[in-house]
Amino acid sequence: MIYFDNSATTKPYRQVLDSFIKVSEEFYGNPSSLHKIGGQAEKLLQQARSQIARLLKVKETEILFTSGGTESNNLAIKGIAAAHRQRGRHIITTSMEHASVHNAIVQLESLGYDITYVKPNSHGIISAESIQNELRDDTILVSVMHVNNEVGTIQPIEEIGMVLKSFPKAFFHVDFVQGIGKVPLNLSNSGVHLATISGHKFHGLKGTGALFVKEGVLLSPLLSGGNQEGKLRSGTENVAGMVAMAKALRMTMELREEKLNQMKSAMGKLRNGISQIKELTIHTPEKNSAPHILNFSIRGWKAETFVHALEAKNIFVSTTSACSSRKKAASRTLLEMGVPVADAESAIRVSLTYSNTEEEAEIVVKAIAETVKQLSEVIKK
Amino acid sequence: MIYFDNSATTKPYRQVLDSFIKVSEEFYGNPSSLHKIGGQAEKLLQQARSQIARLLKVKETEILFTSGGTESNNLAIKGIAAAHRQRGRHIITTSMEHASVHNAIVQLESLGYDITYVKPNSHGIISAESIQNELRDDTILVSVMHVNNEVGTIQPIEEIGMVLKSFPKAFFHVDFVQGIGKVPLNLSNSGVHLATISGHKFHGLKGTGALFVKEGVLLSPLLSGGNQEGKLRSGTENVAGMVAMAKALRMTMELREEKLNQMKSAMGKLRNGISQIKELTIHTPEKNSAPHILNFSIRGWKAETFVHALEAKNIFVSTTSACSSRKKAASRTLLEMGVPVADAESAIRVSLTYSNTEEEAEIVVKAIAETVKQLSEVIKK
Ligand SMILES: Cc1ncc(COP(=O)(O)O)c(C=O)c1O
Ligand SMILES: Cc1ncc(COP(=O)(O)O)c(C=O)c1O
Repeated sequence: MIYFDNSATTKPYRQVLDSFIKVSEEFYGNPSSLHKIGGQAEKLLQQARSQIARLLKVKETEILFTSGGTESNNLAIKGIAAAHRQRGRHIITTSMEHASVHNAIVQLESLGYDITYVKPNSHGIISAESIQNELRDDTILVSVMHVNNEVGTIQPIEEIGMVLKSFPKAFFHVDFVQGIGKVPLNLSNSGVHLATISGHKFHGLKGTGALFVKEGVLLSPLLSGGNQEGKLRSGTENVAGMVAMAKALRMTMELREEKLNQMKSAMGKLRNGISQIKELTIHTPEKNSAPHILNFSIRGWKAETFVHALEAKNIFVSTTSACSSRKKAASRTLLEMGVPVADAESAIRVSLTYSNTEEEAEIVVKAIAETVKQLSEVIKK
Repeated sequence: MIYFDNSATTKPYRQVLDSFIKVSEEFYGNPSSLHKIGGQAEKLLQQARSQIARLLKVKETEILFTSGGTESNNLAIKGIAAAHRQRGRHIITTSMEHASVHNAIVQLESLGYDITYVKPNSHGIISAESIQNELRDDTILVSVMHVNNEVGTIQPIEEIGMVLKSFPKAFFHVDFVQGIGKVPLNLSNSGVHLATISGHKFHGLKGTGALFVKEGVLLSPLLSGGNQEGKLRSGTENVAGMVAMAKALRMTMELREEKLNQMKSAMGKLRNGISQIKELTIHTPEKNSAPHILNFSIRGWKAETFVHALEAKNIFVSTTSACSSRKKAASRTLLEMGVPVADAESAIRVSLTYSNTEEEAEIVVKAIAETVKQLSEVIKK
């Protein structure tokens, strides 16, 4: 089996599961309890927090634990919108964000917020200039993702952060879910106020996430209650899950050192192989893209048919993002980039992780070529 | 070690952890993915949902998965408030709810909703009549907990449900977190529209919960995004956590059959022993209270001192609810019941689960008596 759908979700590392079990069995206390069983859990939670902070080179108090990327994105966006609505109601985002950013912002739009959706260029890049052109005095939030989950392009976060220096009252939120552990981003020094991560995208567990909240940034909570997580996110903390996420992040960043070149070679083989199949069009640009995502189309075939044909060869890839895949609509991101509808409807995403190899890439290229051939023959009959 | 703080959190069953690991390792797909690795995860998620629905005797489509009790309470309350604010802004709740209900409602109050806080009587009971007296045409929500987490009293949910029959436009939310698996409640037949449960309170995992949403009830989502969970709760589903929660619920309900009497005997020993120590006052009434919670005070001592003194004897109990325990304020619930401040500040909660025994209860009673004696001697010196 070749699993090339690591942007949808990853397999948890065995060691991450081991930590989860150990914490769940031996340190099951409620971190808020006064006794030592609670105290031990609290200590583990803080260790996980400081480990993640160290790995991201931010302060321990700037890491807030959540139930995942979707919650972090919603908390950042709705939390800023609610806390700063007296100052302004204008929000800038892009037309290629993940659904958990896009739909959070659409919900705000229905509540009377004024939204500007900036379009990418044909290479899937949002220029800092295009953000600059939209900034206003009443802009309270700019939300731009780091690595796009469908085509893998990397947005110029540092440049946008520079532009925002002239608008010190606008907060900058970055969806860092696809980039973390794959494409470095300096959070403490790029003008970023809020950044979202999700454990299950780097071999941690589903239902675990965090939000980087720069010191001094005021947010309204989405979940009220016992005032855990600096009063910003109530609810008994998933201690074992957060310890697991910290471990997964450490392991992923260590693996990056060791295996980034291997993954790049695998990606090179894929890109090269696919570019030689004339029925296929690659949408992921070579420049300014992450090393683990490649998006391409096979015109004339629904993406779903292609996914299932590869599945029959024990190869797992995806259409667009996982959570949109059941809608079977053309990818919004590709359409925004100017890709024709027919191509956007037949888009396939391949996404790698550090254990993937050149050999796997070769097998996949062969399988893709074969599938294209088989499908073409079906047509001819 | 004797852990008598099961209302704060419980130790996950070994079999629950085994299921979690198995699902995380072997069925790690994203349930939204189109291929079979996603399909298997989706199937497991639906099995967990139908198992929980069966155990609660409700429809499969009425169970919505969340990250815990706090999220479920917030989703129910803010979700109804947002979806029905055109119809009315009046909400009725009680003055003894858990922080995750209370603070969600306080947040709504700050947004202009009109809130009525109904007080309990001196036995910690909210009468159906006291709710009835407050119902108005613009009441959109009534939120009353089932079993109180501090004193263990059981509210007359069925009776309140009957009263609400005359107000068919008011939704009825019940925080069922402490009651589930301990005190039966007929969800489908009591006029309840929404009910909250939390996995870690019945030997499942932290960060897992569910909300019962009766068919036809309209809610606004808190977390927007990929439209998972019937569009009401976006975010990649914590499949393994939900399978674990379903298993924990089944095991707890089976254990109830087998061990309820054992737990009741343990509680009887505790109540009897504590009632014979003249320095202690029991706040949990004998009638209309759950079999697993006992609340009492030792006047003249801060609860925290008492908790630590018992901890030195390897016995773990708590002050008020875990998430309020760091505030060190007197219990709001006890004050509302009319307990004097000095007593409310020295309140101790003991909370059992089905593995607890009479022998443990005897040891704890002895330790409490000894501790009272030791503390009294300290005073005399
Ligand atoms: C870019 C991006 N943001 C946010 C999310 C949402 O994260 P989660 O699945 O943890 O809710 C995902 C993945 O689903 C993603 O790819
Ligand atoms: C009555 C009650 N409601 C809600 C909650 C919150 O649940 P969770 O800890 O899963 O957020 C708790 C426990 O913390 C509780 O005791």
